[in-house]
Amino acid sequence: MNGAESLVRSLIQQGIDVCFANPGTSEMHFVAALDRVSGMRCVLGLHETIVTGAADGYARMVGKRAVTLLHTGPGLANGLSNLHNARKARTPIVNVVGEHALHHIKFDAPLTSDIQGIAEPVSHWVKTPATATELAAAGAEAVDQAGRHPGQIATLILPANTAWDKVNIDNDKIGGNKKTVSKRTTGTTVSDATINAMADELTSAVSNDDPICIILGGHCLRAEALELADKIAQRCNATLLAETFKARFQKGEGRVPVTEIPYPIDAAIQLLAPFKRIVSVCAKPPVGFFAYPDKPSKLYPEDAHIHQLADIHDDGVQALRALANAMDAQDIEPRLQSRVKHDEPADGPLTADAIGVITANQLPEDAIVIDEAITSGRACTEFTRSAARHDWLEICGGSIGGGMPTAVGAAIACPDRKVVSLQADGSAMYSVQALWTQAREKLDITTILFANSSYAILKHELDNVQAQSGRVALDMMELDRPTLDWLALAKGMGVDAIRVTSIDEFRIALARGLALNGPCLIEAVIP
Amino acid sequence: MNGAESLVRSLIQQGIDVCFANPGTSEMHFVAALDRVSGMRCVLGLHETIVTGAADGYARMVGKRAVTLLHTGPGLANGLSNLHNARKARTPIVNVVGEHALHHIKFDAPLTSDIQGIAEPVSHWVKTPATATELAAAGAEAVDQAGRHPGQIATLILPANTAWDKVNIDNDKIGGNKKTVSKRTTGTTVSDATINAMADELTSAVSNDDPICIILGGHCLRAEALELADKIAQRCNATLLAETFKARFQKGEGRVPVTEIPYPIDAAIQLLAPFKRIVSVCAKPPVGFFAYPDKPSKLYPEDAHIHQLADIHDDGVQALRALANAMDAQDIEPRLQSRVKHDEPADGPLTADAIGVITANQLPEDAIVIDEAITSGRACTEFTRSAARHDWLEICGGSIGGGMPTAVGAAIACPDRKVVSLQADGSAMYSVQALWTQAREKLDITTILFANSSYAILKHELDNVQAQSGRVALDMMELDRPTLDWLALAKGMGVDAIRVTSIDEFRIALARGLALNGPCLIEAVIP
Repeated sequence: MNGAESLVRSLIQQGIDVCFANPGTSEMHFVAALDRVSGMRCVLGLHETIVTGAADGYARMVGKRAVTLLHTGPGLANGLSNLHNARKARTPIVNVVGEHALHHIKFDAPLTSDIQGIAEPVSHWVKTPATATELAAAGAEAVDQAGRHPGQIATLILPANTAWDKVNIDNDKIGGNKKTVSKRTTGTTVSDATINAMADELTSAVSNDDPICIILGGHCLRAEALELADKIAQRCNATLLAETFKARFQKGEGRVPVTEIPYPIDAAIQLLAPFKRIVSVCAKPPVGFFAYPDKPSKLYPEDAHIHQLADIHDDGVQALRALANAMDAQDIEPRLQSRVKHDEPADGPLTADAIGVITANQLPEDAIVIDEAITSGRACTEFTRSAARHDWLEICGGSIGGGMPTAVGAAIACPDRKVVSLQADGSAMYSVQALWTQAREKLDITTILFANSSYAILKHELDNVQAQSGRVALDMMELDRPTLDWLALAKGMGVDAIRVTSIDEFRIALARGLALNGPCLIEAVIP
Repeated sequence: MNGAESLVRSLIQQGIDVCFANPGTSEMHFVAALDRVSGMRCVLGLHETIVTGAADGYARMVGKRAVTLLHTGPGLANGLSNLHNARKARTPIVNVVGEHALHHIKFDAPLTSDIQGIAEPVSHWVKTPATATELAAAGAEAVDQAGRHPGQIATLILPANTAWDKVNIDNDKIGGNKKTVSKRTTGTTVSDATINAMADELTSAVSNDDPICIILGGHCLRAEALELADKIAQRCNATLLAETFKARFQKGEGRVPVTEIPYPIDAAIQLLAPFKRIVSVCAKPPVGFFAYPDKPSKLYPEDAHIHQLADIHDDGVQALRALANAMDAQDIEPRLQSRVKHDEPADGPLTADAIGVITANQLPEDAIVIDEAITSGRACTEFTRSAARHDWLEICGGSIGGGMPTAVGAAIACPDRKVVSLQADGSAMYSVQALWTQAREKLDITTILFANSSYAILKHELDNVQAQSGRVALDMMELDRPTLDWLALAKGMGVDAIRVTSIDEFRIALARGLALNGPCLIEAVIP
């Protein structure tokens, strides 16, 4: 076999069975190997931002590492911003990036670029094997690196000659043997000393009547961790908070409700102002998304004590369980959210608020919600707290355009669950090509496209940064010249779509969309 | 005024009057300053690959430096692949990239990234001013750096606090004074000694009957240089060749015809095989686009002598003029292309060949042709050689998706000239958002969209790399599941479009499109 085939076999042996790809000439041997080795599904994206964003959504939901296949430096560059988002979400991803044959690089052909340099700002690990015989082991190493808790970006650069050169490896010996298949690690165990000290601190805080909050992040926003945290919260009268951008947040009926630290800086500062003690669990002490003139970077009071129970590299679930035990809280019943059916507004012009209520009421059990609705999504966030239980995924790196690709990956990870993609129009245009992959793979995704024809968030931010602006500046925030026709765009890529402008139209369209088993897009025209 | 306004004033003083932008919060002060300072047109792209690609097309055609405005690391990352293309085209571009306020970076907010690290692989110069008072001078320095021959990428990172902090600078003193306005440099003068030695070499080669070719690149593919080269070619019986990927090639009626070194490696090797002496003028000795098993990297014979008259940093036009003089060839009449009206095929199913003939016949004088037609464009290349005179722009870095954004920039640079965008469908999807900017700015662009529903070039390359492939691999090269509907996509972004499937339909549609003064797209369905 050749090096590319040994790499494919190695990845499959490590449990990888999906590859998100936009291959070119230098990756042809890798792709061709997929015809000789079964067990790897290849999902094509028409731009690499779809490929990397889909990998992010997939790995967040499936609990495995995602693999991408990208074409040289420019292909990696196109996928970089969603790798930035994935890095901030701590998603485990292996990028396989084709490179010229090593002997060809010195000739500086058009596609020659500094792939290592492009990879480094988003990667925890980068490696370029020099020979075909190194590929299988390098692939296994990349999977191992990506799986290190809480999740890393590992970029394996694949020179064309290492892909096409022959290797002499026994199939069974690729990447060592079965025993070496690397599992994702669970993070560092927090010591008993730390747990006991934290228990003492909290006990003394309670006796002082110090207001306490527990900020949860990363893997600690899933059901089991939330229940453990709530036991602790009840024992020390603490408020449970969730970090602002959540990679995967399990919420709705039967889950512990948690207040989310909001994006707008004034609201976040107001929420955190009362707390004298802040316990962080796999979350960083909260800071502003941006700095603004005359506003602090830290969102919490200067005199608050920060207690780090577990950092992002620790096993937060273990730490919460140990702390609950140390505080003798293990038998406390967690307070779980009950389902609330909200009163729906009467028919009339559609608003983001109406969409929030109706979406929450109709959300199917175990839906996966991707939230890139930006300013239009606040009502959805609010009302889904008491909807059917679901997973809620956000774009963690602030790079817009992550939403629709993340939906692609989540739908591939969980074919039996409905994916609801809450998508603002401005950010949707960053990765509009995702609709084609949704159609091609017949993914069960209902996209609610909030069409306000503007970068509405920038209008809010203009005031925050105290910029005095006029027509030229506002023109950079308005997308209504011409207005984007989302029916046409979706049709152009093979996705059924409908445009709604009234509350009743939206209600009916959403019910129909959710009843489908396949992709559809609802263009919700809102002010 | 604040730092952002001083930067805007500095750029305007340096002759910059267009800014291609996709701004975010950290660039709001820059954008707001455009409402207080007149003289800078701001062109919005809905994805940064449009912004940087448009900058590339603009600067190639207008002879000025282009400026982009990008939002933090992810915004720059999204624009990186077209900056790679621009770098390989030697296009002078200044990127202004917003960054967090410097005091905020240490908090690692979601958008925090290694902007310097992302910029370096595509930039010749990167700078992050620390204070507002440095901005005006840094802006002037960036413009100067970008203008260094033959053209550089200069990236100026703009921390938000330097944008909003007040500066105390006299308007007239910004960036020094008028005398410091930096002109683009013309390159290093090639010495008399080099010129005379080259003249002697060529004279002796002629007496030896050594076959000679002169390979022209960079700025030496424009009319004046081509005529000088042809005088020399006639004197020494040399063949004139053009490098494979041409940033700006002036051709058609009244221009010196030059044979273009083709992309397919076997054809290129065959073309270059006879030559014993290769004179390169602002071009590198030709190498393969990719390496292939059992094929050489160098496209020219191993025993050929390479004579570098001028490298890319030299003033090639001066060198050609001096060499023509040294060879007493200055009075030779250059051989100019005459116009040929080609016989058009009878009606029938549309083919890429028919499109080539008809497009050549209809091409308006002084059109700007952007060629990203990939495998479908060969007939256009061939037949336009004897069309009306025009500028022909190619994507120089091999990163697909440059075509439609380059057309945007060229149209903004030259509003009185027709832009014809020859565009393959697969690569069009990389930057489909460009159509919206074409509609918004009412740009005079006729796009001929070659719809073969595949990454056809990859099918050719499969053989070249000797990959044995089957269904899975081919599936990665076919875009017909679902078929992209270009009428719908264009309509979705406000561009008039028509679909044609026959030769007569195409002929009529092209005539109508070229008669319009505004954007239109012709979806040419071909096998």
